Amino acid sequence: MKDKISVIVWNEFVHEREHDAVKAVYPDGIHLAIAAFLKTDKHLVVETATLDQPEHGLTEDRLAGCDVLLWWGHMAHDKVSDVIVDRVQKRVLEGMGLIVLHSAHFSKIFRRLMGTNCSLKWREAEEQERLWVIEPSHPIAAGLGQYFELPYEEMYGERFDIPSPDETVFLSWFEGGEVFRSGCCWNRGHGRVFYFRPGHETYPTYYDANVQKVITNAVHWAAPRVTLIDECPNVPISLNPIKAKDTHFAKAGIIQQGGKNL
Amino acid sequence: MKDKISVIVWNEFVHEREHDAVKAVYPDGIHLAIAAFLKTDKHLVVETATLDQPEHGLTEDRLAGCDVLLWWGHMAHDKVSDVIVDRVQKRVLEGMGLIVLHSAHFSKIFRRLMGTNCSLKWREAEEQERLWVIEPSHPIAAGLGQYFELPYEEMYGERFDIPSPDETVFLSWFEGGEVFRSGCCWNRGHGRVFYFRPGHETYPTYYDANVQKVITNAVHWAAPRVTLIDECPNVPISLNPIKAKDTHFAKAGIIQQGGKNL
Amino acid sequence: MKDKISVIVWNEFVHEREHDAVKAVYPDGIHLAIAAFLKTDKHLVVETATLDQPEHGLTEDRLAGCDVLLWWGHMAHDKVSDVIVDRVQKRVLEGMGLIVLHSAHFSKIFRRLMGTNCSLKWREAEEQERLWVIEPSHPIAAGLGQYFELPYEEMYGERFDIPSPDETVFLSWFEGGEVFRSGCCWNRGHGRVFYFRPGHETYPTYYDANVQKVITNAVHWAAPRVTLIDECPNVPISLNPIKAKDTHFAKAGIIQQGGKNL
Amino acid sequence: MKDKISVIVWNEFVHEREHDAVKAVYPDGIHLAIAAFLKTDKHLVVETATLDQPEHGLTEDRLAGCDVLLWWGHMAHDKVSDVIVDRVQKRVLEGMGLIVLHSAHFSKIFRRLMGTNCSLKWREAEEQERLWVIEPSHPIAAGLGQYFELPYEEMYGERFDIPSPDETVFLSWFEGGEVFRSGCCWNRGHGRVFYFRPGHETYPTYYDANVQKVITNAVHWAAPRVTLIDECPNVPISLNPIKAKDTHFAKAGIIQQGGKNL
Repeated sequence: MKDKISVIVWNEFVHEREHDAVKAVYPDGIHLAIAAFLKTDKHLVVETATLDQPEHGLTEDRLAGCDVLLWWGHMAHDKVSDVIVDRVQKRVLEGMGLIVLHSAHFSKIFRRLMGTNCSLKWREAEEQERLWVIEPSHPIAAGLGQYFELPYEEMYGERFDIPSPDETVFLSWFEGGEVFRSGCCWNRGHGRVFYFRPGHETYPTYYDANVQKVITNAVHWAAPRVTLIDECPNVPISLNPIKAKDTHFAKAGIIQQGGKNL
Repeated sequence: MKDKISVIVWNEFVHEREHDAVKAVYPDGIHLAIAAFLKTDKHLVVETATLDQPEHGLTEDRLAGCDVLLWWGHMAHDKVSDVIVDRVQKRVLEGMGLIVLHSAHFSKIFRRLMGTNCSLKWREAEEQERLWVIEPSHPIAAGLGQYFELPYEEMYGERFDIPSPDETVFLSWFEGGEVFRSGCCWNRGHGRVFYFRPGHETYPTYYDANVQKVITNAVHWAAPRVTLIDECPNVPISLNPIKAKDTHFAKAGIIQQGGKNL
Repeated sequence: MKDKISVIVWNEFVHEREHDAVKAVYPDGIHLAIAAFLKTDKHLVVETATLDQPEHGLTEDRLAGCDVLLWWGHMAHDKVSDVIVDRVQKRVLEGMGLIVLHSAHFSKIFRRLMGTNCSLKWREAEEQERLWVIEPSHPIAAGLGQYFELPYEEMYGERFDIPSPDETVFLSWFEGGEVFRSGCCWNRGHGRVFYFRPGHETYPTYYDANVQKVITNAVHWAAPRVTLIDECPNVPISLNPIKAKDTHFAKAGIIQQGGKNL
Repeated sequence: MKDKISVIVWNEFVHEREHDAVKAVYPDGIHLAIAAFLKTDKHLVVETATLDQPEHGLTEDRLAGCDVLLWWGHMAHDKVSDVIVDRVQKRVLEGMGLIVLHSAHFSKIFRRLMGTNCSLKWREAEEQERLWVIEPSHPIAAGLGQYFELPYEEMYGERFDIPSPDETVFLSWFEGGEVFRSGCCWNRGHGRVFYFRPGHETYPTYYDANVQKVITNAVHWAAPRVTLIDECPNVPISLNPIKAKDTHFAKAGIIQQGGKNL
């Protein structure tokens, strides 16, 4: 385990500049609000990146040094370059952690890693949400009670079209009648992915102490255990002897592609 | 459950035309060898499709009527159009079954649905493979003994870079010293995906009675239970009353994108 | 698959004889109410059994012929003989299906198969429950809409102390503010286990059409695929040759216990 | 996380006193061989316990202070008192880690926590075992290569009758032709359970550096995250209002049992 965890908080940063309702809550952008509380954890080295920066602020170099990436997006999912999505996916599969926030359920990177539509039901109605901790021994739930509440949130309702999570930490109850798997963990390659539901742009969710605790816990949980570069190696020499057979088959021509002898 | 299951066996069909070693084993193509044994099951209506056909033989209409698609590819993964990959993925998420065979572990559609690299170790050495049935009550293992053997196969070894399967039916033992998760099931959207390891192009694997039984079982297992089109609905009217709150928040501007009110 | 599925509905049948509130709703016992709707499915051969019968109505012979057992209990869990619990567990591990209803979350047989406490929160308050279908393609959800409602139910709330289900079909929303994993599937041995939450003894839950559909679906889903008797075989002859080693180790004495050469 | 992890290595300690073949390899008992290498980790406080001690060395007090328990047994599984099994299970469900070694697959405590038979195939033939790391980013695999080998081991072969593991870290290849899920993780209650296959009493497995690394890693992985006592609370006061209904149902009589209002 490294002493310090390098974190990048990525935000598309469009709502906060275009909509007064959002600006009123997050005047400097959601990314800075999140970075602000993460910076109070002395084990974290926190930076931010936004859509409008060159390469969306996610150059090869920056990503190579990033341990955990947080992702908030909503209006501009389709403006994220596929090249950057490829790059982030590659880093997750190598071991980088990824924390996907709220409306980023529809981000390219989350859908890429899940392989599914990631669709859901939704309603924007100043609605109470209660998040029940169903795995109290999970590191992401450390320090929480049996549940916590958000007085104002957008509703997301099942069915949430995701692969069955490896671990489900939170289930949400909504005042208006829906439920949701609100804290979901997956292993993908050598990296860990956490989806955390709350975080609508017009509500002060990221100032909530419990939400901050969850996200901070998730950063620690998602920090890389290893970094392993993908390969698909030919291992022509066997570890144990292979008996000579009576019948023989020819080989197809040898074609090299992507490191794999096809 | 429908009376008849509509099946398409897709094959890139390149090896069999370019390499004598493959032509010798599958003179009419791997797809026809597979279709031949599937056709002996009276519940299946079996067709084939290949890379060189218009739209790779997978037009909107054909896919719309397809219950289970089988996929064999190796040399030409990168020649498969992304448009067709999108189309197949969409149909799987709606409920169509997908059976991914051998070297199609590296196909675009499998990597798309898994979200991972799907890489592995490999060796081509006329090697014995023994597939152990670890879930004897799984429908895909129906009619098999505790294991079955293939005298000649390409070796695929762990680590296989896949999301943890929802169910693992077979584990392979290789003469040369490796092991592999050879029969893996996943739910993705409303569809079922099965990866089955054996099937190297220069060995007569698809003529093996146990291999044929597994693939036939898998087609039945993967047949659609439902067909559900993806949507991400706004449900402005709540099922239960939402209490009026003291504080109010404005809404961000309304933007429509991809069926979702952003 | 057998043409007919043999079903036993087991009920402790105490409440219905001791409490007027329960007698008013289920005058002949919960088991007969459940058997009545199951009998309308012509593929099912339905019998019942109760606690007060010899061997609780679950003799070796009856269980040997049983494909799917349903279990309702509440007041008298500790009156169920451990011998019968052993017998039911053995049959589940051999392939028999088991459907565990409502307050049977605390039954000996469910706790035995789960290995956990199976505890939860609860409240009896004439409360609305809404069950959301989170896996619409699961056979147990066949024919249901996106959710169904029960106007009167006992509340069960998370944390539900169970092993992570192999599949979760339903999540419940309760009027009073809790959520619950209400339809959970596990494979245990060669058998399938389904826990279904609703069914409080003083409410007419088992007369609800959706509840009846779920239980009927579950019986079909849980029907045995195989019947395999447990063994732990010594296989002294290896399938592949074991190389003679330079160093040799003696064996411990041979002791036979439970079919295993220890 | 506590600074120090309190570990108890439990061993039935019968073979080592009765069989010369075992005494030759583990003259002081397997428990002391395991304790010896664990003690070189300064974060661990290591003690041992054996079957022949009062309460098998697992008094309420000792278990209350134990963070991780290791369990080796073989000949004398049925001599372990059910009272002690209950006690260990209770502590696991509260958060204590449990590491189950080799022939303890048939121990009462492992079968209790799994709910299944835990049977397998076996052969004692001075056989090579190769353990493949299939989850290289799992903490239990830290510091290992792609595989490690044991020149002499007893063979355990699939099917291993266990609930599908939450995580599978190792798959074994055996010289004689079998495979096995050799490193399996489960969450049970608030505790973590790890089964590790190697460790036959007549072979020097516990002196192997890789085996020692795995067991040491597993102790750290299994250390408690929380300690939570089981309860099944009545919560008569709802968090959100429950609407008065038109129809009313009486309640069954109130019976208190095990903290639960039945």
